[in-house]
Amino acid sequence: MTTHTDRQYEEELASLREHILTMGGLVEKQITNAIRALVDRDQAVAQATVAKDTEVNRLDVEIDELCIRLLALRQPAGRDLRFITTALKITTDLERIGDRAVSISERALELAGEPPLKPYIDVPRMAEISSAMLRRSLDAFVREDAELALAVCRSDDEVDKLNGQIFRELLSYMIEDPQAITRAMRILFVSKYLERIADHATNIAEMVVFMVKGKSIRHLDVPSDV
Amino acid sequence: MTTHTDRQYEEELASLREHILTMGGLVEKQITNAIRALVDRDQAVAQATVAKDTEVNRLDVEIDELCIRLLALRQPAGRDLRFITTALKITTDLERIGDRAVSISERALELAGEPPLKPYIDVPRMAEISSAMLRRSLDAFVREDAELALAVCRSDDEVDKLNGQIFRELLSYMIEDPQAITRAMRILFVSKYLERIADHATNIAEMVVFMVKGKSIRHLDVPSDV
Repeated sequence: MTTHTDRQYEEELASLREHILTMGGLVEKQITNAIRALVDRDQAVAQATVAKDTEVNRLDVEIDELCIRLLALRQPAGRDLRFITTALKITTDLERIGDRAVSISERALELAGEPPLKPYIDVPRMAEISSAMLRRSLDAFVREDAELALAVCRSDDEVDKLNGQIFRELLSYMIEDPQAITRAMRILFVSKYLERIADHATNIAEMVVFMVKGKSIRHLDVPSDV
Repeated sequence: MTTHTDRQYEEELASLREHILTMGGLVEKQITNAIRALVDRDQAVAQATVAKDTEVNRLDVEIDELCIRLLALRQPAGRDLRFITTALKITTDLERIGDRAVSISERALELAGEPPLKPYIDVPRMAEISSAMLRRSLDAFVREDAELALAVCRSDDEVDKLNGQIFRELLSYMIEDPQAITRAMRILFVSKYLERIADHATNIAEMVVFMVKGKSIRHLDVPSDV
């Protein structure tokens, strides 16, 4: 028998799930738009992406409040408690991913005012993988699917490899032509922001494994960072 | 009248506070050691700092568990609830600061194998300010002191300024001498890690203001990042 309160509680949990997915979707779009601004040298798209960050931030605060309200009024235990505390931690990662999309847009704005250095191939590829990792880590969260979360963690190597590749390629540009240094640095920063986005998605996935299995796989490896 | 359970609960909250300060102290020491490894070109210190990260990670998991246990068994409300949910979020920032100390140590290891580029002046200065920001943000947390937290947020500009200064200086080194590019890049990354550490301290401080005042000062500015 389901009481009125139970149903309300279930609805609140469902609303939390939806809010997280909405925030994730928004942040993913922010990454896509930031990369589009970079590749198309489109300053209007870059500026719109920067402006849109307030919406990401609003959702961050809203979800935190939702979690705290659920904890205060429903006093959840067990699985629900882990779900809510994980949601509290996930919003921080989503908000920081949003910040990195802003950083990419800022570099895109600068690069749009300078002559193009080279066509972008690896950077959009890296953005695609990172976005997919983000999407799958949140799917794993709402479905409480540890296997999917583990698959996300494994994708992180691919992003790190691409980041290393971009680093070496840009380094050779810089050595050959000092005039390219500033632009190459900006692109390098974009690559590092994307690597950081993939790290956030990996962190989310690790927290999902922790939530589902009740034990931590975080910290099995020493973090490495170019 | 204080019951046995009340006293136990107070002790658990005090233990949570202590754990956060212990983790903060450890992470602060990790930053100091990473910078010492860099400045002294000391590979042993760099390696020890990388190895010590497992201790940071152990504390991260321990504190999360402590928070979840408190939420499950004590069903706190009001101020205590906000304190515990903030602690849950703060551990993530502390753990990431630890990761950045590892990243600095890795760059220190690489730079110790290459001829020195220039004496370090601004980088240790930046590390000092960032460490102080971290220490003060955690003091603000355990004392629930919103004024102190706001002072931490204001220090972030100084770090951003130093980061910009280091960026411009290293850029001129790179343009003058292509042989310096790889080394200059590594130092630049160290500078960015420190800037990120200051960002984490700022995030902690913002969460403390939120905890104390019950409203968010996060997201009043668009984040900016070189």
